[in-house]
Amino acid sequence: MATLSYLTTTHFDFGALSLVGKEMKRLNVRRPLVVTDAGVVGAGLLARLEEQLNGMEHQIYSSTPANPTEAAVLSALDQFSRSGCDGIICMGGGSPMDLGKAVALLAGNGGPLARFEPSSGGAKLIERICPIIAIPTTSGTGSEVSVGAVIILDDGRKATFASPKLIPAVAICDPDLTMSLPPQLTAATGMDAITHCIEAVLSPVVNPPAEGVGLDGLWRGWRNIESAVKDGRDKEARWQMMMASTEGAMAFVKGLGAVHALSHSAGRLPNLRLHHGTLNAVFLPAVLRFNRDSARDKYERLTTAMNLPQGADLADAVAERNAQLGLPAGLSAMGVAPSMMEDLVRFAELDLAGRTNPRQLTRGDFETLIVASM
Amino acid sequence: MATLSYLTTTHFDFGALSLVGKEMKRLNVRRPLVVTDAGVVGAGLLARLEEQLNGMEHQIYSSTPANPTEAAVLSALDQFSRSGCDGIICMGGGSPMDLGKAVALLAGNGGPLARFEPSSGGAKLIERICPIIAIPTTSGTGSEVSVGAVIILDDGRKATFASPKLIPAVAICDPDLTMSLPPQLTAATGMDAITHCIEAVLSPVVNPPAEGVGLDGLWRGWRNIESAVKDGRDKEARWQMMMASTEGAMAFVKGLGAVHALSHSAGRLPNLRLHHGTLNAVFLPAVLRFNRDSARDKYERLTTAMNLPQGADLADAVAERNAQLGLPAGLSAMGVAPSMMEDLVRFAELDLAGRTNPRQLTRGDFETLIVASM
Repeated sequence: MATLSYLTTTHFDFGALSLVGKEMKRLNVRRPLVVTDAGVVGAGLLARLEEQLNGMEHQIYSSTPANPTEAAVLSALDQFSRSGCDGIICMGGGSPMDLGKAVALLAGNGGPLARFEPSSGGAKLIERICPIIAIPTTSGTGSEVSVGAVIILDDGRKATFASPKLIPAVAICDPDLTMSLPPQLTAATGMDAITHCIEAVLSPVVNPPAEGVGLDGLWRGWRNIESAVKDGRDKEARWQMMMASTEGAMAFVKGLGAVHALSHSAGRLPNLRLHHGTLNAVFLPAVLRFNRDSARDKYERLTTAMNLPQGADLADAVAERNAQLGLPAGLSAMGVAPSMMEDLVRFAELDLAGRTNPRQLTRGDFETLIVASM
Repeated sequence: MATLSYLTTTHFDFGALSLVGKEMKRLNVRRPLVVTDAGVVGAGLLARLEEQLNGMEHQIYSSTPANPTEAAVLSALDQFSRSGCDGIICMGGGSPMDLGKAVALLAGNGGPLARFEPSSGGAKLIERICPIIAIPTTSGTGSEVSVGAVIILDDGRKATFASPKLIPAVAICDPDLTMSLPPQLTAATGMDAITHCIEAVLSPVVNPPAEGVGLDGLWRGWRNIESAVKDGRDKEARWQMMMASTEGAMAFVKGLGAVHALSHSAGRLPNLRLHHGTLNAVFLPAVLRFNRDSARDKYERLTTAMNLPQGADLADAVAERNAQLGLPAGLSAMGVAPSMMEDLVRFAELDLAGRTNPRQLTRGDFETLIVASM
């Protein structure tokens, strides 16, 4: 069992789920709210967690929506408070993680959510956070070790909350929980992890250790995503994809870039409920073309990590890989219409992630990137 | 200014020294013992620290020997206790760092030092440690972010103490403090950093983020060591070498290997007082030959990080680089005689670092490695 202590303590290996009771005791959590979603319940994973909890008191909130909303956060918070919970266990992909973090944020510091937005300096207002135990069931978000939580606010913005206090007290990464993830979700979440690694490396923020972690995550992710999609029972590939996901999020303490600004914006389009990882995969080629001349040296290192010949076009390589993995070729195939352009650009411009893109972004640039990704 | 928060908080950039007063306040340190050595005093670096302390109360212990001894630790501890100190500022290379950590260890937990040895499970006995502020003046040891402290005990062993509690509360990495480091020390400490990165990557302990950090440190160190040695005023090279040093120590949470087992043993040879980094440089080629078949995949990644063609002999590349940098060609040139063999092997076998070498080491292997390094 690898125990990594960088941003937080991470227990990482097949079978790690068995540590949950021990970790609850260590963190003095006696009545956790388990935050999860219907997919996790349906796949029988919540049952496996409850088996480990073995009669220990706990509450369950399993109605997390994809791309969680402020309303869902308030509903889970209500359950947390009414039941006298003292900690949170997030189990699932990015949505339950983010929702659980937001509940912990409000439980410890009072609302409304909007006042903690980092763009207005709100991260400083975060004082207390109850212990969060994060158990990923996909390999993509990395939210189990990340400083971030993304919530669609009542006013329509998809806001990113970011603070070291939002890093879970412990991450329990058990690749066994991803073995039944279907190929399409494996592909989409895997490309999410790969995008985290790439955008973190390209961010101009100076943090070489994070850059090294991102390059290592990319090295593992790019080598293993095809095997994991092709054969979900490939334990080695599942392990490596989960590691790429964790490393991606460790790396993005450096910030992300234009792909995420665009994906966050598209992720909040009403009615469509588009998958974050799929959006990242679709936006990545155009953004890689756009940024190329602003970070030549880093492109060389990305090329090496992806085991491509120097001078290879990274954008082409990603587009080709997307096609091999059965991911959509563009936004049109996902239901995004040209009429949504203005809305897409407006929220992409507001997004925090764009600020660490290696090349500055204008309104026109966002338009161009969206058109190129259609 | 890059502020990295992985194992500890690190302020990293030219000018970072100016943060020392602020950090003392944050850590509630009112009367630190400044642990340093004659070289740091002679180079005028202590004066630069005192300028920053600007009248704040502090004590100075500047008699740290190269390869610090238990006796020196006790003498500094005496000064710490008599003066009612409440924290430690280590300024210098590895020796003042290690001595300062050992003082903090004894001040908080009582002696003798030997009972904290990790080989006998003693790390668990470490309870309290006063705040340590670490300010490196060389780029090699990385002790400012490491879990370790190496002290020659009264019984003659060179013991490695290792515990997360020995990580300084904050590292202040100001490459400006290394600008006057002479070429030979730049070369020797630089090869120390490079050895840390290589041995950490090769350790079989599972920790991919640390591996990524080690590979990044190697990439920076290998590319910049020649420039830093050739022109000490090359700010970019000094920055990169200091980063390689910090990353090397972040990486070796995975453990080290045979090079360090041998260097620790040779470092305690009475009368010779051999430089740790120089010893690492001299042992590295033979150990790289010895380990090659036990870690083929990792050798490929090391080769890439060092920008060598695949299949290149890493041992030859290091030996060649040592020669270019003016480092000794072998142990004989450093005064080690064949008569010291038994002593060298005995203490190398006892050393903690050998346990994470990728290939198991017998007494005969150590003999072979020493003969090959003569």
